[in-house]
Amino acid sequence: MSKPVVGIIMGSQSDMRVMSEASKVLDELGVAYELTIVSAHRTPHRMVHYAAAARDKGLKAIIAGAGGAAHLPGMVASLTTLPVIGVPVKSSNSIDGWDSVLSILQMPGGVPVASVALDGDKNEGILAAQIVGAFDEQIAQNLADYKVALREKVEASIREVEGD
Amino acid sequence: MSKPVVGIIMGSQSDMRVMSEASKVLDELGVAYELTIVSAHRTPHRMVHYAAAARDKGLKAIIAGAGGAAHLPGMVASLTTLPVIGVPVKSSNSIDGWDSVLSILQMPGGVPVASVALDGDKNEGILAAQIVGAFDEQIAQNLADYKVALREKVEASIREVEGD
Amino acid sequence: MSKPVVGIIMGSQSDMRVMSEASKVLDELGVAYELTIVSAHRTPHRMVHYAAAARDKGLKAIIAGAGGAAHLPGMVASLTTLPVIGVPVKSSNSIDGWDSVLSILQMPGGVPVASVALDGDKNEGILAAQIVGAFDEQIAQNLADYKVALREKVEASIREVEGD
Amino acid sequence: MSKPVVGIIMGSQSDMRVMSEASKVLDELGVAYELTIVSAHRTPHRMVHYAAAARDKGLKAIIAGAGGAAHLPGMVASLTTLPVIGVPVKSSNSIDGWDSVLSILQMPGGVPVASVALDGDKNEGILAAQIVGAFDEQIAQNLADYKVALREKVEASIREVEGD
Amino acid sequence: MSKPVVGIIMGSQSDMRVMSEASKVLDELGVAYELTIVSAHRTPHRMVHYAAAARDKGLKAIIAGAGGAAHLPGMVASLTTLPVIGVPVKSSNSIDGWDSVLSILQMPGGVPVASVALDGDKNEGILAAQIVGAFDEQIAQNLADYKVALREKVEASIREVEGD
Amino acid sequence: MSKPVVGIIMGSQSDMRVMSEASKVLDELGVAYELTIVSAHRTPHRMVHYAAAARDKGLKAIIAGAGGAAHLPGMVASLTTLPVIGVPVKSSNSIDGWDSVLSILQMPGGVPVASVALDGDKNEGILAAQIVGAFDEQIAQNLADYKVALREKVEASIREVEGD
Amino acid sequence: MSKPVVGIIMGSQSDMRVMSEASKVLDELGVAYELTIVSAHRTPHRMVHYAAAARDKGLKAIIAGAGGAAHLPGMVASLTTLPVIGVPVKSSNSIDGWDSVLSILQMPGGVPVASVALDGDKNEGILAAQIVGAFDEQIAQNLADYKVALREKVEASIREVEGD
Amino acid sequence: MSKPVVGIIMGSQSDMRVMSEASKVLDELGVAYELTIVSAHRTPHRMVHYAAAARDKGLKAIIAGAGGAAHLPGMVASLTTLPVIGVPVKSSNSIDGWDSVLSILQMPGGVPVASVALDGDKNEGILAAQIVGAFDEQIAQNLADYKVALREKVEASIREVEGD
Repeated sequence: MSKPVVGIIMGSQSDMRVMSEASKVLDELGVAYELTIVSAHRTPHRMVHYAAAARDKGLKAIIAGAGGAAHLPGMVASLTTLPVIGVPVKSSNSIDGWDSVLSILQMPGGVPVASVALDGDKNEGILAAQIVGAFDEQIAQNLADYKVALREKVEASIREVEGD
Repeated sequence: MSKPVVGIIMGSQSDMRVMSEASKVLDELGVAYELTIVSAHRTPHRMVHYAAAARDKGLKAIIAGAGGAAHLPGMVASLTTLPVIGVPVKSSNSIDGWDSVLSILQMPGGVPVASVALDGDKNEGILAAQIVGAFDEQIAQNLADYKVALREKVEASIREVEGD
Repeated sequence: MSKPVVGIIMGSQSDMRVMSEASKVLDELGVAYELTIVSAHRTPHRMVHYAAAARDKGLKAIIAGAGGAAHLPGMVASLTTLPVIGVPVKSSNSIDGWDSVLSILQMPGGVPVASVALDGDKNEGILAAQIVGAFDEQIAQNLADYKVALREKVEASIREVEGD
Repeated sequence: MSKPVVGIIMGSQSDMRVMSEASKVLDELGVAYELTIVSAHRTPHRMVHYAAAARDKGLKAIIAGAGGAAHLPGMVASLTTLPVIGVPVKSSNSIDGWDSVLSILQMPGGVPVASVALDGDKNEGILAAQIVGAFDEQIAQNLADYKVALREKVEASIREVEGD
Repeated sequence: MSKPVVGIIMGSQSDMRVMSEASKVLDELGVAYELTIVSAHRTPHRMVHYAAAARDKGLKAIIAGAGGAAHLPGMVASLTTLPVIGVPVKSSNSIDGWDSVLSILQMPGGVPVASVALDGDKNEGILAAQIVGAFDEQIAQNLADYKVALREKVEASIREVEGD
Repeated sequence: MSKPVVGIIMGSQSDMRVMSEASKVLDELGVAYELTIVSAHRTPHRMVHYAAAARDKGLKAIIAGAGGAAHLPGMVASLTTLPVIGVPVKSSNSIDGWDSVLSILQMPGGVPVASVALDGDKNEGILAAQIVGAFDEQIAQNLADYKVALREKVEASIREVEGD
Repeated sequence: MSKPVVGIIMGSQSDMRVMSEASKVLDELGVAYELTIVSAHRTPHRMVHYAAAARDKGLKAIIAGAGGAAHLPGMVASLTTLPVIGVPVKSSNSIDGWDSVLSILQMPGGVPVASVALDGDKNEGILAAQIVGAFDEQIAQNLADYKVALREKVEASIREVEGD
Repeated sequence: MSKPVVGIIMGSQSDMRVMSEASKVLDELGVAYELTIVSAHRTPHRMVHYAAAARDKGLKAIIAGAGGAAHLPGMVASLTTLPVIGVPVKSSNSIDGWDSVLSILQMPGGVPVASVALDGDKNEGILAAQIVGAFDEQIAQNLADYKVALREKVEASIREVEGD
């Protein structure tokens, strides 16, 4: 695989349930990535180093997922000028997901995080590919093909439903 | 000014209160943009045309702001492979902003929108610059300078508070 | 069956769990309908065509169900002068249904959607029948009979409970 | 004025702030209406009589607005087979409008209310006109013209914004 | 059993899951009651008659349980001068119970409902007994004994936990 | 004035804004009451004594208002067998009133509080009168007259609105 | 074991599911504690005595867990000058945990409770240890070791994930 | 003044509105403190250094206030073994304060933050004093006096209200 352009990080191994969808869709879209665990609260120094080094190693975007009082995406964003995509994960003690959604979405002026929906549903991966694809014709074409595939899947279900 | 790489659109002229901050920060960061009004609900055909033409005219990202049942960012995202940044605007009849936040954030799998905080507070503009800056060294440097300026502003307030 | 006067559309085949109740109750009330899948985000052009053609093919009302950031009802409403009934569907990644409820209910001035309760519970179908029944004596009579049946079902349960 | 086809009712005179917009837009769309006060909690017998008589006096739809624990739309719907449009009004002691929204939206299966957004913003009136317009070509044309006017207003603001 | 002084009503037989706890605790506290089904939306005329007759047949309080857009307690309260106790029931399509809670709690000035917690947990029955017990020494004594029993149950669990 | 049968207490003098409405409506309905300040958190011992003595001094119901984490109504209810009416007050640091509403409404099984709407709007007073009126014919008559007055006030506003 | 410096109390034996984690982590951190049941609503006098005696028997902090309208932490805080840690427990009839969270968090000025997350997840115990550890070098060292263990556990999962 | 034992930090100078109450009440309770600005997002390196150095310079507790996606309290807690008190500040773009409340309260297991109410109302300062006072007799006495003063203030308002 070529050099990673997207970094996928998550606060805990239990977030793999959600974040493995990001890696799958990036594979599908032909975007090289790296994936690891970085905990804002349990490995804060590792987080500082990861964020500080991200641009220099060639990353173009970072996907960060975390649950509860989810500080990982926002803290990484404070330490890099790369776009950071935040994935609110619905963790086991969560108050219906509102905690991770608001901890990631409501960043103060100056330090944006690009939030996607609760538990992401692949959109964090597609968004990272769109960022790369804004400057890479091949990825852009892959994204256009992906859109066609989405439409064709709907069209198949139309035939099934209307055939009833 | 050079050719726009960011498109700023909004559902209504009343959203200018929020969206003019995006244009200001893009000016500050040296990112060329265009700005206009596109209403998902009152000019749906215009919206389709705007989204379909965006990539070909050289845009790298679209910032879309809307209030209430805010469909503009998600609908534009369904019609382009560019990254779309959604800004939930707290409109006059809003239920405390929850309507626009959830209408923009909770996109279904396959069609991401990059959501920022309610009323954005410049973050939509900075995020667009970060997307461009991931591939443009000059913008990246401007973003790094912007981060320094944020820090220096805090340092000035530290001196003020500690001097008390 | 006679020519459809109600169009039932939904964003995804998974919405059939909820939307098949609409078709059942319309059958029961003697209202002819058509049913298909139209996705705002995955088939936006199909959505534009469906909405634009609806009145001319004789529809009197459109029932549109969708989950999450549910844009289908509102976008269809922007493209037709027919009454559009929106059904918020509680999808798998939903934040307790609030996302689809607010994305459908909180439409801006000028473009109404007639929202029913989360997951609808047949009310979308009955409401469509009421719209037709406002101008069709037979359907009105069927609705009156339906109300009597509801009452009689309660009366049966009264006998059961009081007989305890 | 011709015989009313829409009945506008509200729980209290203080709801006129919101409900007078319904009457204005119905005037604009050429739909004849009547308007009065009917309180579910303070004049329950009047409410029963109003709802029971509505169809026979020629109404095709009822618009009912109420705040707080808003029972008027749902109770009227239980007493007529006409479509009932519910307008959640944000009253003075309201918990941010959630009480009236949920009291109107979440009707049990069998008794639909067509809910519009909090404080309505004219949509209750337009929706009533759409119901009438589904069967009346003149009203349908007026609604189509109204949509054009909405678009033209956006186009004027586009010129203003782009002219900047 | 002596003449009922408390009326227990509910909107649907499915509410028996919750409301049978009211009857059990009233049995335990020695308060005579009657229990039946009265649906605000499916038997509105029955509801009017039930409420109007309640005081004359000797009831001192009415317990009314309902789910979703729960109008039964408030509508009964509008039709009687007896105290009405409202029990928000978490029905199957409920938005986490908020709909029934707010539909019952947020009554407008002039028509109170005495709301208890979501799904009640016997408190509706105890509250009815307290109303009767304010004027009946025997019931008051039974309530005092009930409080002692609650305390003794806690004391038993203290011994169990501290014995660990 | 005759011996008080209702006790009105509140956590802080700032709650008088809301609680003075209770005293006014009890005056209007001819129900004798006493009114004072009892703070659960700042005068816990006074609260214990107040609650323990309430029944013996002839009270038939206690109205308790408090804001924020509002513990006064529930704690008083734990210390008496009288019915306790809880009034959630929207205090200055409140999260939109949700804190006092849930702290009062969601009492555990065994210890009911009769909750009224946020900031009460006189309903706490009327409910206390209804409890007394269940056993006192004069108060019952006053409540019936009050209901007539409510209706007549609506009828006056009907004439005003319809006269337009 | 040495003399307890932390008191763990809970409103009901069913809270042991959550509160036993506090005792386990205090064991692990070498902090002596006592544990019992104290119900604000069912044993109010016991609560008053427990809180009043806590400081004199050598406690340095009290952990109090409760669900629903959770008054135990706040009431204990009103009766002692020791720091009180509140644990919102998600009880069976809870409205998604919001009731206990707000009943514990939103204490009025003058009477603080140190709230931790819904269902605590050991944090109540660690916080109590931190309070003791602020003045006890051995406990501080144990907390530092605990932080290292947290980090090492993340590092193990990093090796597992990156080894994939 | 003696050596500080409490550190007060806040994310922005605008938080002084809330945090200056902490310093006032610590003055009143005789607890020495230091106060400065530390922004998690704009000065992340300063935050790491502040937290790491806190224990060694003699602090016993840290009070951290922040608004929106409030990461300061939790991040500081990840970097020290001292107890950290989090103050959710309602910032200008906040969604009614829910964002800062949940970002601070819902910390994952292992890294507690002691949360106080939205905008704190002095409780963050009193809680810090209670932590110190658990081991310092003089501060404990000051806290006991403070409680008496709270009670006396209530007693004065009782005389005022009852004198009416």
